[in-house]
Amino acid sequence: MQHSYAQLAQRLKHDLQRQRHQAGDKLPSVRQLATSEGVSTATVVRCYRLLETEGYVEVRAKSGMYVADWKAQQAARRTLQAAADATTPPPVRFEQLASLQHRMSQLHALTAQPLTLALHLADAEPGWYPCEALARAGQRLLRREPQGLGTYLTGTGLPALKKALIGHLARSGMDLGPADLLVTSGATEALQLALRAVTRPGDTIAVESPVYFGILQAGELLGLKMLEIPCVAGQGMSLEALEYALAQHGGVRAVVVMPNFQNPLGTAMPDAAKQRLLGLAERHGATLIEDDAFGDLAPGLDRPRPIKAWDRHGQVIYCGCASKSMAPALRVGWVVGGRHQRTLESLKFSNSLTTPWFEQAVLAEYMVSGAVAADLRRLRERLAATVPPATEAVRAHFPAGTRVAGPAIGWWLWIELPEGLDTMVLLHAAVRHGLAFTPGALFSSAGKFKHHLRLNIARPWTRELALGIKTLGALAQAAASHPAGAIAPAPSP
Amino acid sequence: MQHSYAQLAQRLKHDLQRQRHQAGDKLPSVRQLATSEGVSTATVVRCYRLLETEGYVEVRAKSGMYVADWKAQQAARRTLQAAADATTPPPVRFEQLASLQHRMSQLHALTAQPLTLALHLADAEPGWYPCEALARAGQRLLRREPQGLGTYLTGTGLPALKKALIGHLARSGMDLGPADLLVTSGATEALQLALRAVTRPGDTIAVESPVYFGILQAGELLGLKMLEIPCVAGQGMSLEALEYALAQHGGVRAVVVMPNFQNPLGTAMPDAAKQRLLGLAERHGATLIEDDAFGDLAPGLDRPRPIKAWDRHGQVIYCGCASKSMAPALRVGWVVGGRHQRTLESLKFSNSLTTPWFEQAVLAEYMVSGAVAADLRRLRERLAATVPPATEAVRAHFPAGTRVAGPAIGWWLWIELPEGLDTMVLLHAAVRHGLAFTPGALFSSAGKFKHHLRLNIARPWTRELALGIKTLGALAQAAASHPAGAIAPAPSP
Repeated sequence: MQHSYAQLAQRLKHDLQRQRHQAGDKLPSVRQLATSEGVSTATVVRCYRLLETEGYVEVRAKSGMYVADWKAQQAARRTLQAAADATTPPPVRFEQLASLQHRMSQLHALTAQPLTLALHLADAEPGWYPCEALARAGQRLLRREPQGLGTYLTGTGLPALKKALIGHLARSGMDLGPADLLVTSGATEALQLALRAVTRPGDTIAVESPVYFGILQAGELLGLKMLEIPCVAGQGMSLEALEYALAQHGGVRAVVVMPNFQNPLGTAMPDAAKQRLLGLAERHGATLIEDDAFGDLAPGLDRPRPIKAWDRHGQVIYCGCASKSMAPALRVGWVVGGRHQRTLESLKFSNSLTTPWFEQAVLAEYMVSGAVAADLRRLRERLAATVPPATEAVRAHFPAGTRVAGPAIGWWLWIELPEGLDTMVLLHAAVRHGLAFTPGALFSSAGKFKHHLRLNIARPWTRELALGIKTLGALAQAAASHPAGAIAPAPSP
Repeated sequence: MQHSYAQLAQRLKHDLQRQRHQAGDKLPSVRQLATSEGVSTATVVRCYRLLETEGYVEVRAKSGMYVADWKAQQAARRTLQAAADATTPPPVRFEQLASLQHRMSQLHALTAQPLTLALHLADAEPGWYPCEALARAGQRLLRREPQGLGTYLTGTGLPALKKALIGHLARSGMDLGPADLLVTSGATEALQLALRAVTRPGDTIAVESPVYFGILQAGELLGLKMLEIPCVAGQGMSLEALEYALAQHGGVRAVVVMPNFQNPLGTAMPDAAKQRLLGLAERHGATLIEDDAFGDLAPGLDRPRPIKAWDRHGQVIYCGCASKSMAPALRVGWVVGGRHQRTLESLKFSNSLTTPWFEQAVLAEYMVSGAVAADLRRLRERLAATVPPATEAVRAHFPAGTRVAGPAIGWWLWIELPEGLDTMVLLHAAVRHGLAFTPGALFSSAGKFKHHLRLNIARPWTRELALGIKTLGALAQAAASHPAGAIAPAPSP
């Protein structure tokens, strides 16, 4: 999807590359170009900013826009790249963190930085997963079926995996047959396909607020308008706010929810509220897209029921995956889309053909090995164990007035710092100390949660983690005692 | 993307499910519903057809539309599904083969049928791939890095794989750095991302004709209008026809080509034509999306240059993969998108996060093992060996007047049967004999190539293959001697 400023920039670049202008030539002023192109000055400003970022244009103070010596810059860049070690991380474009289109990629770019404590993504301690069992299952598989890596896989999912999933999901109250399931590349692809199945660009969907930034990026790239519905403590999405929004907007195509451990609040929606939500969606003809990535990690004995389990009219598209509960690196997810299933299948084939054989087969073997229940229990216990010391550390070291939202499973802490403290600015300082977290602003497209942050604590409570939280707290304290948003000099660790 | 007939059908289904009508009630006539809904009668007809297919509506001859007893039907279906063996293949919906949206999924459904000779997809003999080497590399990997399956992968591609790909693509004349490459789930995802990066719904793109049906399905699901540009023997896309179309339409956003062994014609575009094509695209401001899935399989010593190798202005988005030349089940592809690279990365993250670690690591190991050149040579020889006997068999057994297009690598035969012979009808008969091929109609959205078919011959010349071609020829002969399209009684094999 190309905005008009990007199209204009592309055409200008073409001209520059064809030598229509030489390095050092003066370019039209913003007003001149807006008039000659018949676009707004805002569009021209964005266009010139883009060209400046890419090295084609330079701004000379009080003078205007000039053609930069882009050829020399590109040659230099290529030489540098060729010489650089293949593992040199690309720089983080902090300004793109705030952009809806790029926030996820920039967050991942953060990961490539040299960080002591990378707490900005949703990954848990690798050692908490049954890696050895998965690796052994993989080796057995490759010995037994070496031709597996040479055979084109077809269909909507490996039969052995579907069988295992049917058993697994039956425990959640979902009664499925093989034709009801489509295996995807993680819940990410499941959500993407679900959105594409029921919306077109220009449509409106309702999402939780705060909401996982992946949904915001997906919605933006699909050209969707997103209504951010506030959440209430202990429930998740406010059904009153949703009811109001659905009635007022009239024409919301889908409501995207994470009722079992919302990302980032960690709330669990009670059954009664789930049923009300389903009824609301039915009455307004909106598809409920349910992301159940964390559903298996509920504390306690009873696995919470997905909303899909109550769905009699095909109102819900259910998305799940193994990435959080069983095996992060397998990238295996699934979607149960009811009446939309054939459309989802066609979209999947068109999108990425099939999910690879190996991962599906490994997961299937693991799921029927009998180890899942015990591994999940152990994972839940470990997640829960870090919560008290981590929460305590935040209370001890962060500025007065800091609030920590209740995390139900322990995967992360949603921390609200005193108002006026900009956590995006804090991130700059934190990265210099080798620490990363997710700034709250990423969880909204409307500029909310600027003084919030999400901290990943899905790892053992170690001295390193304790020190990281202490340092982060100190940086926040320093920022709090300076004018709003200013970056304080680094305190001694 | 939902068409208006589908939206209307959805609303009617809602009404039916809410018991607004009882089984046996008469529904509005086509004209009545068109008037009351403010849509065309064509839309209502399509709507009613969809509801009929799904069992909600039944047509009573000379009487009209009635509500079917859909609840009983659904209950019966669920019971059947629950009782059925998980491996029962879903029926092939032949009528959906012709639909742009579903043709690929239905083609894959064909594969689930009990077929002796499944020659309708683009898979080659699994034994022709270095399966054992890949399996051994996989086992080594899992022993060395068992935590690999527990660690969330981030970034735009495993560094080791990027390094191997840079070396591999350098031999094609492409000079890349790690930031220029994005690893995708096969060329399928690469093409999908490329289309989404440079088009919006409603835009127009130019494609070859005949063209790989995956492109048609992708374009349809993205809401794109597709201009089908005829190909010429020995070249591929006709540049004169393309020039005319670009000038006449004015505003074509992208041109999708497979210049190295076009699917399904097998043509290889000469270098001079490639450069003309690039110039054409530049002059008209259209992005060239290049699918190079088969490029490594050129006969002879010189690997053909991708058009990307001549690209100085970022006009080309290059898509490649390992699925045809090295390892079909790995689902690893790559995209080199020049100025669109950051957009492609954001789309990828939003689409499926990352391509799994295991497949990337296995491919990287294989690519640096030194075995690639010899394995590719052997694969090319084997592909070429089947061509003469297969072509001979077609000439011997198919109806007089049948023409076989020259296949440059031997992956398939593009067969033109006498006009009037409907290969979609022939497919029905063939499937009953356990044979499948790809009907020509799938390679166009405009109803062309009805008497063509694509036959996959990427397998050893065996008695089984010989018998299959003989049987298919006999079926075609029988159909040719009957009135156009009629299905003849099965001849004795």
